[in-house]
Amino acid sequence: MTARTLQGFMELLPEEQIVMEKMKHVIAHTYELFGFAPLDTPVLELADVLLSKSGGETEKQIYEFKKGDTDLAMRFDLTVPLAKYVALYHNNLTFPFKRYQIGKVYRGERPQKGRFREFYQCDIDIIDRDELNIVYDAEVLAVIYTVFNKLELPTFKIYINNRKLLSGFLESLDIADKTVDVLRLVDKIKKIPAEAFLGELSEMGLPQDKNEALLKFIKTSGNNEQILSQLENLGISTENYVTGLEELKTVVNQAKNLGINPQNMQIDLSITRGLDYYTGTVYETFFDDYPQFGSVCSGGRYDNLSSVFMDKKFPGVGISIGLTRLFDQLRDNGLLKIAGPTPNKVLIVTQNPDYNDLAIKLAGELRRDDIAADVMIRSCKFKKKMEFANKIKIPYLIIIGEEEAQSQIFAIKDMVSGEQNKMTSSELIKFLKN
Amino acid sequence: MTARTLQGFMELLPEEQIVMEKMKHVIAHTYELFGFAPLDTPVLELADVLLSKSGGETEKQIYEFKKGDTDLAMRFDLTVPLAKYVALYHNNLTFPFKRYQIGKVYRGERPQKGRFREFYQCDIDIIDRDELNIVYDAEVLAVIYTVFNKLELPTFKIYINNRKLLSGFLESLDIADKTVDVLRLVDKIKKIPAEAFLGELSEMGLPQDKNEALLKFIKTSGNNEQILSQLENLGISTENYVTGLEELKTVVNQAKNLGINPQNMQIDLSITRGLDYYTGTVYETFFDDYPQFGSVCSGGRYDNLSSVFMDKKFPGVGISIGLTRLFDQLRDNGLLKIAGPTPNKVLIVTQNPDYNDLAIKLAGELRRDDIAADVMIRSCKFKKKMEFANKIKIPYLIIIGEEEAQSQIFAIKDMVSGEQNKMTSSELIKFLKN
Repeated sequence: MTARTLQGFMELLPEEQIVMEKMKHVIAHTYELFGFAPLDTPVLELADVLLSKSGGETEKQIYEFKKGDTDLAMRFDLTVPLAKYVALYHNNLTFPFKRYQIGKVYRGERPQKGRFREFYQCDIDIIDRDELNIVYDAEVLAVIYTVFNKLELPTFKIYINNRKLLSGFLESLDIADKTVDVLRLVDKIKKIPAEAFLGELSEMGLPQDKNEALLKFIKTSGNNEQILSQLENLGISTENYVTGLEELKTVVNQAKNLGINPQNMQIDLSITRGLDYYTGTVYETFFDDYPQFGSVCSGGRYDNLSSVFMDKKFPGVGISIGLTRLFDQLRDNGLLKIAGPTPNKVLIVTQNPDYNDLAIKLAGELRRDDIAADVMIRSCKFKKKMEFANKIKIPYLIIIGEEEAQSQIFAIKDMVSGEQNKMTSSELIKFLKN
Repeated sequence: MTARTLQGFMELLPEEQIVMEKMKHVIAHTYELFGFAPLDTPVLELADVLLSKSGGETEKQIYEFKKGDTDLAMRFDLTVPLAKYVALYHNNLTFPFKRYQIGKVYRGERPQKGRFREFYQCDIDIIDRDELNIVYDAEVLAVIYTVFNKLELPTFKIYINNRKLLSGFLESLDIADKTVDVLRLVDKIKKIPAEAFLGELSEMGLPQDKNEALLKFIKTSGNNEQILSQLENLGISTENYVTGLEELKTVVNQAKNLGINPQNMQIDLSITRGLDYYTGTVYETFFDDYPQFGSVCSGGRYDNLSSVFMDKKFPGVGISIGLTRLFDQLRDNGLLKIAGPTPNKVLIVTQNPDYNDLAIKLAGELRRDDIAADVMIRSCKFKKKMEFANKIKIPYLIIIGEEEAQSQIFAIKDMVSGEQNKMTSSELIKFLKN
């Protein structure tokens, strides 16, 4: 039998996995700082529950199968399971309900570089009954901002927009009936030249003046305040436009209250999130110097999470980080700080097996003081043990021989600087703890 | 569409999930303290890779299906994926290789109380090339001991044995050919009376004196030292027996070096782990006052992890905690400390929306100092906001009204003791940080 892993399924070496786990931890911790509670829904669901809302593209990609008489499917996102969860448990939840979920989802896409069939999504959503205050749209912005700051990745910018603005603008031009087609096209604006954009609008049967007005509108530029005042100055009074502008202003203002650096957020009227079910604020996040990564964190505001499952209205706002793809891109571009394949801070090596007992006792002491420590136990030459220490890139090394056994004073070596210090075991603990 | 979750798939409320995540965190952190590196293999594998080693029972339970032309299966444990992983990547790993994996596995059992079709396993294994030092068997014991201490669960005892002892004992009785049948029977010893045990041995065609010797052997009692000296005094000299006794002694002695309380570990010669592939040390863990939970952490030593995939020899030792079932049993017996449904330490409530901006700024400050904080923003009466605070069982509450807005002095209330203190925002941070 040949050992193989399925194509499109990420499997990391320990030194990489350690970095991945750190990223997951930073993301989860930040989500919790903002009051999001963890959730963990099943990977498998009834097929009809998962597919209740989805279109043809998703259905083709889904891992669906029968077990006995039951049609099962593996989740392809964390949103449908959340909709199901809220429908099932809303009487046991308190609203506004803030949850995060970090979990694997499955899409049977054709495997290709950078596409995964199993990948982590790291989602947050804030859900309320009937109505959700717009302030939460700013809070989501603050979460993205804090996560990417804490991850210590390249300079990023969060692009925000409000879909009501474009709808209201189209209404003011009297072409609201073209909204779906226009949305689809605006979504492509960064990939096609202006002429092609105008050409496609013409093909929809729109007159040239309106097309140009639309292009000018979605290309509105400047800093956030400048864009907001340009939007104000257009003097458009359709309800969608007025509400959208008011909401966008609130989000930008609250972002200041929440301490977001204006360098890291930018209103961009061309951001629409395509045909997704968003109805207000939308977000995309790009690295300034790596636009080819695409959006590394996206989401938005929606009117009704669980409409497929019930009559009650649960509006929400949320975002998702596609962690597996992000990790893959960062790694490919040498942007991850990958160190050794062990969580150990210190390794103890003995000059011969006579000192193993002492080494094992010392490791036990260190661990009881919350210091990850190990003894390399193997019937091999001392030289081999040192090769092991170097290969795992251990930060600190303690060697125990006759002298140390007699004096109970241990030499600890910083394997990066090469510096060496002699200490008692309690001094060791103090030293390694900081 | 009715929202439903599949039977046998655990789905928790936020207040429960928070406890579950804490348990996962304690387990992962302890594993790392002992130098185990995280791994994360796919949930889906090629069916032939997963089923390469398994017997009929597993195959019936497995979630297996076709996608296109490929036979896929969901993993039913974390051991076969580890065997595959080591076979694939052994040239990139350093040995001894210590890994942990906490992940969901799938078994399509008939759903019943306490049986899950999707459940977490929390595994550690230490693998070496050709030979793995027996000291690591004690280290695994120390890991179990530390995990269950840190989880703050009811009093537990780790039962250990070495399968070579029973094999060697059967050899000394000249009934080694019955080893498999005897193992199967010994595994049931705690569920059947002594007479039934002896009766079944007779049915195998074994003479009465040997049956009674066997029963006496596996019932050997006393503390660990007493059992070891009784085993010594039997004077058996078959190779298996001698090696097994030597290994068991080493494990018990090293357990002392590692600081394990002798109250929490007990040699029990009736522990065999049935027909599993273990070849030396075996472990089972029970709560003293809840034997009905069964073993909550089991494992052992094996000779060759990846034999299905390659010729090279990789002996190992490992254990697994079945976390989902453990959580379920602890919850059913009221043994979990379930608090509120939020990770927030403090909630800020405003007397009216005029103070929302101030509240949002304060929440931002707290979060920047790593304190989970939230503002309850909703167009509702103050009374409703207070109901929310009580419902989520928030540990600390800050109310902001006119006085606080003017003085910038905030009253923080300990919601458990009822105690209230007035402080500036920087004093608040200091107070909440400890």
